[in-house]
Amino acid sequence: MEKTILDNATILCPEENGSFSVIDRGFLVVEEGVISEASEGEPDPSQQEKARMVDSSNLILMPGLVNTHGHAAMTLLRSYADDLPLMQWLQEKIWPIESKLSEEHFYWGTLLSMVEMIRSGTTTFTDMYFGMERVAQAAQESGMRAVISQGLFGLTEMKHQFLNDTEELINRWQGACSGRITVILGPHAPYTCPPDYLKEIIKFSQDKDLPLQIHLSETRDELKKHKIEHDNTPVQHLEKLGLLERPVLAAHCVHLSSEDIKILAENNVGVSHNPGSNLKLGCGIAPLKDMLQAGIKVGLGTDGASSNNNLDMFEEMRLAALLPKGLHEDPTLIPAPLAIDMATRMGADILFQEKLGKIKAGHKADIIGIDKSSPRLTPLHSITSNLVYSATGADVKLVMVDGNMLMEKGELLTLDEEKIKFEAQRSVDQLVRLVND
Amino acid sequence: MEKTILDNATILCPEENGSFSVIDRGFLVVEEGVISEASEGEPDPSQQEKARMVDSSNLILMPGLVNTHGHAAMTLLRSYADDLPLMQWLQEKIWPIESKLSEEHFYWGTLLSMVEMIRSGTTTFTDMYFGMERVAQAAQESGMRAVISQGLFGLTEMKHQFLNDTEELINRWQGACSGRITVILGPHAPYTCPPDYLKEIIKFSQDKDLPLQIHLSETRDELKKHKIEHDNTPVQHLEKLGLLERPVLAAHCVHLSSEDIKILAENNVGVSHNPGSNLKLGCGIAPLKDMLQAGIKVGLGTDGASSNNNLDMFEEMRLAALLPKGLHEDPTLIPAPLAIDMATRMGADILFQEKLGKIKAGHKADIIGIDKSSPRLTPLHSITSNLVYSATGADVKLVMVDGNMLMEKGELLTLDEEKIKFEAQRSVDQLVRLVND
Repeated sequence: MEKTILDNATILCPEENGSFSVIDRGFLVVEEGVISEASEGEPDPSQQEKARMVDSSNLILMPGLVNTHGHAAMTLLRSYADDLPLMQWLQEKIWPIESKLSEEHFYWGTLLSMVEMIRSGTTTFTDMYFGMERVAQAAQESGMRAVISQGLFGLTEMKHQFLNDTEELINRWQGACSGRITVILGPHAPYTCPPDYLKEIIKFSQDKDLPLQIHLSETRDELKKHKIEHDNTPVQHLEKLGLLERPVLAAHCVHLSSEDIKILAENNVGVSHNPGSNLKLGCGIAPLKDMLQAGIKVGLGTDGASSNNNLDMFEEMRLAALLPKGLHEDPTLIPAPLAIDMATRMGADILFQEKLGKIKAGHKADIIGIDKSSPRLTPLHSITSNLVYSATGADVKLVMVDGNMLMEKGELLTLDEEKIKFEAQRSVDQLVRLVND
Repeated sequence: MEKTILDNATILCPEENGSFSVIDRGFLVVEEGVISEASEGEPDPSQQEKARMVDSSNLILMPGLVNTHGHAAMTLLRSYADDLPLMQWLQEKIWPIESKLSEEHFYWGTLLSMVEMIRSGTTTFTDMYFGMERVAQAAQESGMRAVISQGLFGLTEMKHQFLNDTEELINRWQGACSGRITVILGPHAPYTCPPDYLKEIIKFSQDKDLPLQIHLSETRDELKKHKIEHDNTPVQHLEKLGLLERPVLAAHCVHLSSEDIKILAENNVGVSHNPGSNLKLGCGIAPLKDMLQAGIKVGLGTDGASSNNNLDMFEEMRLAALLPKGLHEDPTLIPAPLAIDMATRMGADILFQEKLGKIKAGHKADIIGIDKSSPRLTPLHSITSNLVYSATGADVKLVMVDGNMLMEKGELLTLDEEKIKFEAQRSVDQLVRLVND
């Protein structure tokens, strides 16, 4: 693998405490997929030998964004159904079309999501859905870093098939593509996985030494039903079953009691905060301030494009920073550097990814470059404020994952964007006709 | 003025009731700054004679976005100060640098805002600030439609000077540039304009037959202080003074009692809803659902870039549609077409602009074109949902105001973007040095 030097750049470097330092004019050396140096000034002539030099004089370089929750192939359903009551949306629109998704839809839908994610600076994505072989294949082709799970549902006879599929997925893809692909377990939610099934999953997780991701406490209605059935909260339920003793990533966590927050913190559960999806589906606004104050590690996620409806992590950073300010009428909450930290270092952390989410020697070279001459970033009094409060994914011009360029000067290098958009639209149009017949 | 035909386009046409119809493949004819036809199919060969044909086969055409509240030159202060308590932000950061703004800052700051506004599909902007001669000059040069006010403050000896400035502004600019520039009165707020001064302004407004714009009920603190001084709410105060009998545009309206909402509705006061700025400054979340239910006409605004921090009306549409859903836990509130209606037809209406905000024969040709092949708009199951929940200002590729092209194929035609960014950054850097000395 070639050596690459990104020089003449402005570099945003996360520090250990979640703050950022800025190198005004410096360079990054990338070798074998890893950052070997991040320094001010110019690289030595000897360093430049046999290196590919990438002039980054117009860019702010920072760690790639980490999307900690999503359903990539659902990008095919973007704008398919909106503004409906939650159960009507699911029962009349989403579930009927979802049940007809085939391998080609998982493939083209995931590739379409990747066009959008790479273009908007996401380098690592998380997926919990079906057709995971196709998702892994798309990750292999696109060059993105992926943390994937076959969705595990325990309400039908398919429940053991899902575990078998997971085992196959692990055998074929765990650590594939130089470690870019990670498989973890994906029990869908407490309300779709009865206690016995969750116990099997916990055992599976122990035997294979695997972390888990799960949807948790997303809607008020879910909590009401859970209370009737189990007389506790979903968080207390998972603790009682022993699931929280495993490494866990919990998505949403909109409706939490103070006891729930304590349990999540004590068990070191990572939370994927999805503010855009939570607003759009009318779930509510998660208690971000309280979770962070309790010491819970929180990353950001878009959720699927059928409930967001885009995959732009800049918007999730902005919403994460803005909502607590408005809700608590306190403009000092969630300052810009903290929002970036959630989208990078903390996000990598809760995805169980070591050596990711920082610009530091020895860390993985997942790096993005933002056009600092964009009107939205002018003037540039504060890089972190401009990134969180003004930038959009469209300002990203360079994306590197594992030392490989996925986008340069705004051009995608690993994916055929026109073909993907065409095939995605064609395959979903066919599907809509099928559902309407 | 030449005749222009935009053909092969998808056209989003607002209907009288706030919903939209779609012409799948059609054309718009623009003559003398006015839309003369919007039809399905192809224009006749005879129509095409002497017309400039603009192939719009990749575009969704819709009315240009109307920004109903802002302070354009404050774009120079984007990211200058963020995440601070409101009074510290104002007293220690914003006011000291604002007091040093000169003519050149108003000029370059406004032009910088216009680069961003045109690029993100805004065709009409509203301004209430200082240096309005320069703002009008920038509007003349850029080709944007502008509704402008000299800010009127009644707490210093300058108060009559501000009214004189307004009079001069009217004499020079009212109706200038074929009616693109409109001057209205801009009393800053009830807390900066004592009753006697407001009475003078009301008289001025009657004598000159001019509407007014005013900041109203933005923060909880403002309401507390007002209660102590006047023993009512700012809305009741303005009603008592007779100001609401005039045509009024009220910005923010975050903290309203049900009595306030009734008063605003009865007096036909238009409200500029600024969800992004209200969140960022910790003001709160305006009662949009209640205002609309009471029959109040609501437009959308960005406020200044020092408190937003961008001028992208797509984000304001998205926030306006998402916040009530999350807050009231109801995903059916503010559906996508309503958000677009607020950003176009209703926005034009509350700016006292007739024949604006619609795609209809006889209406002004303020039109934008959005790239329908953008990944964020793929697939295209619903145009209105994609525009509100997924698109960003960066997806806008064509902007026409008053029949003149301001942007085509993503290239600005009336402004020198590189020069403006350079001069804006240079002039504000100089200002920051001045303030820090």
